[in-house]
Amino acid sequence: MQLVKAEIIAIGDELLYGQIMDTNSHWISQELDLIGVKVVRKTTVGDNRNDILSAFAEAEQRADIILITGGLGPTQDDLTKPLLAEYFGCEIVEVPEAVEAVTSFFKRRGREMTQLNILQGHLPACCTYVPNEVGTAPGMWFEKNGTYWMSMPGVPHEMKKLMRDFVLPKLPQVFELPIIYHKMIKTAGIGESWLADLIKDWENNLPEHIRLAYLPSLGHVKLRLTAFGTDQQKLADEVENQITSVLPLIDKFVYGYDEETLESAIGKLLKNAGKSLALAESCSGGYVSHLVTTVPGSSAYFQGSVVPYHNQFKENILGVKAETLQSVGAVSEETAKEMALGVRRLFGSDFGLASTGIAGPDGGSEEKPVGTVWIACAGEGFLEARKLQLTQDRMLNIQLTGVSVLNLLRNCFNQNNK
Amino acid sequence: MQLVKAEIIAIGDELLYGQIMDTNSHWISQELDLIGVKVVRKTTVGDNRNDILSAFAEAEQRADIILITGGLGPTQDDLTKPLLAEYFGCEIVEVPEAVEAVTSFFKRRGREMTQLNILQGHLPACCTYVPNEVGTAPGMWFEKNGTYWMSMPGVPHEMKKLMRDFVLPKLPQVFELPIIYHKMIKTAGIGESWLADLIKDWENNLPEHIRLAYLPSLGHVKLRLTAFGTDQQKLADEVENQITSVLPLIDKFVYGYDEETLESAIGKLLKNAGKSLALAESCSGGYVSHLVTTVPGSSAYFQGSVVPYHNQFKENILGVKAETLQSVGAVSEETAKEMALGVRRLFGSDFGLASTGIAGPDGGSEEKPVGTVWIACAGEGFLEARKLQLTQDRMLNIQLTGVSVLNLLRNCFNQNNK
Repeated sequence: MQLVKAEIIAIGDELLYGQIMDTNSHWISQELDLIGVKVVRKTTVGDNRNDILSAFAEAEQRADIILITGGLGPTQDDLTKPLLAEYFGCEIVEVPEAVEAVTSFFKRRGREMTQLNILQGHLPACCTYVPNEVGTAPGMWFEKNGTYWMSMPGVPHEMKKLMRDFVLPKLPQVFELPIIYHKMIKTAGIGESWLADLIKDWENNLPEHIRLAYLPSLGHVKLRLTAFGTDQQKLADEVENQITSVLPLIDKFVYGYDEETLESAIGKLLKNAGKSLALAESCSGGYVSHLVTTVPGSSAYFQGSVVPYHNQFKENILGVKAETLQSVGAVSEETAKEMALGVRRLFGSDFGLASTGIAGPDGGSEEKPVGTVWIACAGEGFLEARKLQLTQDRMLNIQLTGVSVLNLLRNCFNQNNK
Repeated sequence: MQLVKAEIIAIGDELLYGQIMDTNSHWISQELDLIGVKVVRKTTVGDNRNDILSAFAEAEQRADIILITGGLGPTQDDLTKPLLAEYFGCEIVEVPEAVEAVTSFFKRRGREMTQLNILQGHLPACCTYVPNEVGTAPGMWFEKNGTYWMSMPGVPHEMKKLMRDFVLPKLPQVFELPIIYHKMIKTAGIGESWLADLIKDWENNLPEHIRLAYLPSLGHVKLRLTAFGTDQQKLADEVENQITSVLPLIDKFVYGYDEETLESAIGKLLKNAGKSLALAESCSGGYVSHLVTTVPGSSAYFQGSVVPYHNQFKENILGVKAETLQSVGAVSEETAKEMALGVRRLFGSDFGLASTGIAGPDGGSEEKPVGTVWIACAGEGFLEARKLQLTQDRMLNIQLTGVSVLNLLRNCFNQNNK
């Protein structure tokens, strides 16, 4: 089996001038990696004839599949289609099916159509027309001397639909691709190097054909297992067995697999147990509530929250004791605990979570510098708090508090609902 | 004056395989655009000798300044430094100043240093050493036949510091760059095509040397004015005059300029007027509170918020009338208004804002489909509400509600605090 090499070409002045960030190439890379196609280069060029033609010629030398995004609008700036026709030496002709598709697209949206839009249904005679159901610029598939080309619009959701519906199913038909099985283990509450240390013996004993990658992000580390072979089911079984052996070493930190997020994992825990949640957020300012409520169906377990940004509201609304605030201050274990208890009582929820801290950049002191945060979790028969010592950066402190609060809930849930 | 052309080369397998998104190239593009350097191509290659060398050779043909990120780690995967030495035909030698910098970097952090780290202070003899104060891999500046090269680490904050401290000040010294003046007008509450329609006569009368770009993002449209010339102060005056003429046409929608965000603009309004704010968020689930509290110093005007995710809490905590909830439901003008009044009362704030709606994907009905949202603003002597008909997408509905709520506050503030 030969390695299949891909090249991605993004076209558009707006990408070179930094008006738009090219997220397409990144997404395409991820999708190709999942099916064992190796991206060897990504190139971005502007709306310029010579630059586009030279990018085509260079890519053809290196790659088996060339994926092009952008430059397909109806205006004269958009050069991709005429230059592909020129590169492949064929005329642009009316494709009745494509004209019909763009016409009915405008009809469905109740929008006026111009002559320029009709021309979007005219395509190079040497391409295969690939319908774009969610936009006006069609996909175009070319084949020349064993190299395949796909041209797609730059609008991300249009490109993704063409990739999912056409390109990704097509590639295994035209190339012999390796069989690959992926699984991602999602962890929170532990840094990359600590995690690596916990699992180093297991990692060193992984067979040659199973690779491990550490993918860290804010407060999270993802472990990606990739197995290569010839039998999908066998690979899946092998990966599951490896997960079974590593899990006892790290289960405290694992909240899910693949597409699971920490907030969706918590949602499942609560929903399955019929338990409910309320939040008291001071320094995290509503961020945890926002995370929790991004999950569809969160109203089944989320009761609500209070953001008491000043001491008087911690007292009046949540019932934190005046003497606690006076003696140990708002950023303290006691206040965090009383806030968690108070919000649990206010909403009558099973779990009450709280955050209180100094997000910065101002408000720090020698005793409690910027980044000092207390979080707490209250529930039936337990009350736990943790101190965090975070960064100098306000936004980072808010985000890291968010992950820590959710992870504290996960730990409390698991310890108290077995 | 000649056009100065730049090329950006990002190096690293992790970029090609989609493990990390290359945000560096986008940021560099924006910065170069601001000083009138034209990016002609961006290239991403992996940790592969031939690919890197050919990217160097190709870039040299096209560009006057070549900016390279990544591939500077201490391990054997990282090829940028040896390949630059090879490309420019010089040895790698110990640079005592660079060894000293990396040694003291480790000392400051209290971390162990390995032989590999010491080698980070060994550099190609033909480069100018550029200190990296926030990391261990130094910057390297090369010059060959009138083309300039800069190699920087891939870690974004290290790259940005080297760009800001060294590259961006250096470029006007080695190239004759155009004089450019930029100003961004920030708007919310109006779509791109409506905005374009309002200002079309003004836009058509802009002089040749002042360009206008529309930069739309979720709920916002930015108008970027770019003036080219020879006298910075003259350009600034011309742009300010143009803004003075366009402003009466769109002032209702303009919340600020340049780095201002809607939430920071609102913060300034409130702080300067000595007014305070409280929020009642149902469908926006804490997102507006999060936006407001990302602004440093927001505790000066933000009192707090309540997220009453179920009707009983709208009633118990905010004092929405049971009969309102029963007769017209939670997603209604009346409920939104009573929530705004209630939260204003609870926190004793000058302004009370509220959101209530169906974020989706479930919970819609024929009468109130997914995306139906009511928002309200209460203040001394006024009470306003608006209905929004948003999308099918939960996340989008939350974000668009956030922008709309803040923009409603801005409008109410301006109408009632003149």
